[in-house]
Amino acid sequence: MNASSTISTGILSRLDVLATVSETRNGLTRRYLTVQHREANDLVGVWMGEAGMQVHQDAVGNIIGRYEGKCDGAPALIIGSHLDTVVMAGKYDGMLGVVTAIQCVRDLHMRGIRMPFAIEVVGFADEEGVRFQSTYLGSRAIAGTFRQELLESRDADGMTMADALRAFGLDPDEIDTAAKRSEDVIGYLELHIEQGPVLESMDEPVGVVTAIAGATRRTVTLSGVAGHAGTVPMGNRQDALLAAAECALAVEGVATKRTHCVATVGRMEVEPGAPNVIPGSVTFSIDIRADEDAKRIEALAELDPWLAEIADKRGCTLNMETVHEATSVTCAPWILRQIEAAISADEGRVIRLPSGAGHDAAAMADLTDIGMIFVRCTGGISHNPDETITAADAAVGARLLLRVIENFQAEDK
Amino acid sequence: MNASSTISTGILSRLDVLATVSETRNGLTRRYLTVQHREANDLVGVWMGEAGMQVHQDAVGNIIGRYEGKCDGAPALIIGSHLDTVVMAGKYDGMLGVVTAIQCVRDLHMRGIRMPFAIEVVGFADEEGVRFQSTYLGSRAIAGTFRQELLESRDADGMTMADALRAFGLDPDEIDTAAKRSEDVIGYLELHIEQGPVLESMDEPVGVVTAIAGATRRTVTLSGVAGHAGTVPMGNRQDALLAAAECALAVEGVATKRTHCVATVGRMEVEPGAPNVIPGSVTFSIDIRADEDAKRIEALAELDPWLAEIADKRGCTLNMETVHEATSVTCAPWILRQIEAAISADEGRVIRLPSGAGHDAAAMADLTDIGMIFVRCTGGISHNPDETITAADAAVGARLLLRVIENFQAEDK
Repeated sequence: MNASSTISTGILSRLDVLATVSETRNGLTRRYLTVQHREANDLVGVWMGEAGMQVHQDAVGNIIGRYEGKCDGAPALIIGSHLDTVVMAGKYDGMLGVVTAIQCVRDLHMRGIRMPFAIEVVGFADEEGVRFQSTYLGSRAIAGTFRQELLESRDADGMTMADALRAFGLDPDEIDTAAKRSEDVIGYLELHIEQGPVLESMDEPVGVVTAIAGATRRTVTLSGVAGHAGTVPMGNRQDALLAAAECALAVEGVATKRTHCVATVGRMEVEPGAPNVIPGSVTFSIDIRADEDAKRIEALAELDPWLAEIADKRGCTLNMETVHEATSVTCAPWILRQIEAAISADEGRVIRLPSGAGHDAAAMADLTDIGMIFVRCTGGISHNPDETITAADAAVGARLLLRVIENFQAEDK
Repeated sequence: MNASSTISTGILSRLDVLATVSETRNGLTRRYLTVQHREANDLVGVWMGEAGMQVHQDAVGNIIGRYEGKCDGAPALIIGSHLDTVVMAGKYDGMLGVVTAIQCVRDLHMRGIRMPFAIEVVGFADEEGVRFQSTYLGSRAIAGTFRQELLESRDADGMTMADALRAFGLDPDEIDTAAKRSEDVIGYLELHIEQGPVLESMDEPVGVVTAIAGATRRTVTLSGVAGHAGTVPMGNRQDALLAAAECALAVEGVATKRTHCVATVGRMEVEPGAPNVIPGSVTFSIDIRADEDAKRIEALAELDPWLAEIADKRGCTLNMETVHEATSVTCAPWILRQIEAAISADEGRVIRLPSGAGHDAAAMADLTDIGMIFVRCTGGISHNPDETITAADAAVGARLLLRVIENFQAEDK
């Protein structure tokens, strides 16, 4: 691969520049439709232009660069990731995929290479959903699955998404125009940091994503009876915290016995929460994910009666609400094979892994077939200012993406 | 007892008024050195004054009313309880003892009766230890056992006790002045709701306390590694919440296997506490009590290596700090006999019982001999907005306390 020494040049320094476009000082925060969103789009638009692309911002605020193929107007291979961040984020989650894609196109452009298909690089406007508590806004708009009722959802300051779009200079009535027709697209690729420890533990810089896990998120409340920690005998207690403790271990239990299934109790609030009071009520979250929906549904079917039994045994009432549900998305086998072939051609070892985190690719799967490349990140740390990758791994990822593009064969339909 | 029909009048309505002085709306919360603490002191001070007492607030924030005896400056019988509460408390715990004592003195005052000794009614400033995680602050200051290093302890907002005292208008350097000399005190009485189910199960309105259980309170912090709930496989996790869940069950385990031993995890705080983040650190409380000190020490000796083993197994570091330690305290036999005589004189059945809860009396035992009266509470429920007593039981308690006072014979030393 003759471009291997140059395409990765500047990726990390561009990410450093992007990271300065932040609402917060220590740690990167860039929410949808903010001044920082506009600034990031402007910056990325300039880089896209320098890479030989025609640039425009669509109706939902995605920034898109198009690199025509041998014939103008050919269907496009879309390569994208997101430019928004969580609060106090790192500088690689999302942005690495956008910057790397631009560098790949720039490399083709500098070598005067045109593919039989167009390439569109997309910097998605909102994947994290921080501002309006709804994820994949940018990719859903392109996939044609944007839900209009979200325009009325409000941010923490009470501003509706529709008003925020107007303030950004966009027209909420035009969002439909961001949608692409499936006949104009041949596939979707996304390069992203792993955000987990698997590649590091296997000592490999990159991996192929097999599927994006489905997820169920629940809020559980256990109600017992508060009482004095000194005077109520152990046998007379209805301690909501002890019930919650057993439930948390049950949540772990249903995940550990299944491969590629994870379950987490991340939030737990104890009422009244004083050292000398038996807890009267506890509210906690359950987040459960699996590469296959059947597996997740089976885990929940095992968990539900288990939690009910714990609550009953401890004299507590159980209330459970499902607050989020997403089905798993399978990466297209024909794209997966092309990514694996590119890894092998670079003498790499093929590591297949599911993605436990959600990505724009999951939304894009409603429009076209998808494939994803993961790049190793240090310690699996993400959604944290300490998120980091090495320059060497960024280079391996960029080389791999370029090789996949240069050898990309659209599926015969 | 000719005063029996009037002394109890107004006790419950005064408790209702006190209960409106709260940091929270549904359920009473009044922590040390808050605006509500000041308001409660002001209210109780007015009632003390109306009952013929000279009122002052001491250097730690206790409100004290003194009713002189036949000769001014005579040693005092101290009668007290606390005015602070747990979070979301009932309105009887502590406050019943203060209000009842005021009513007894008011009754003596209205009848023009002076005893051979002075009476001092104390509304202790902090018994529950909610704000600074350290109990008996008020009674320890009077007993001369206040630990100066506590002035540097911090509340949940990071404010030191010294600064909170200053903000309240007190001088932390003056706390020693709150201490009483033992030669100025002839004994200490405390009337308190039982906060347990024993008197109710024996169908008696009042009981005599034989001893106050010893207690150890610890703050435990487990530190693991935070991470993305979707991307870190179960086997790679160092989940502080799962470790804490196992620890809570271990705490329960060491208590259930011992008679008259209780142990509680009442507080648990999870960081960062988001549904999609693996908990990186958890802080929780342990409260363990037993009627005999040897039993409590044995339970802790079993618990400590158990917690260490759990932390180790889960890849978490364990930090444990003992924030409170109290040996069991025996009530003085000579005061116990006087309370029993008063119950018998009122044709009541004498019920002796130990207190599983700590009380200011335990701290006051360092200064003088103590005696305690328990009043039945419904369902044994306490530290809960549902805490309740009947007007009839309040009246029996008040009559009993007044009879004890009127017949009180200081011990011949």
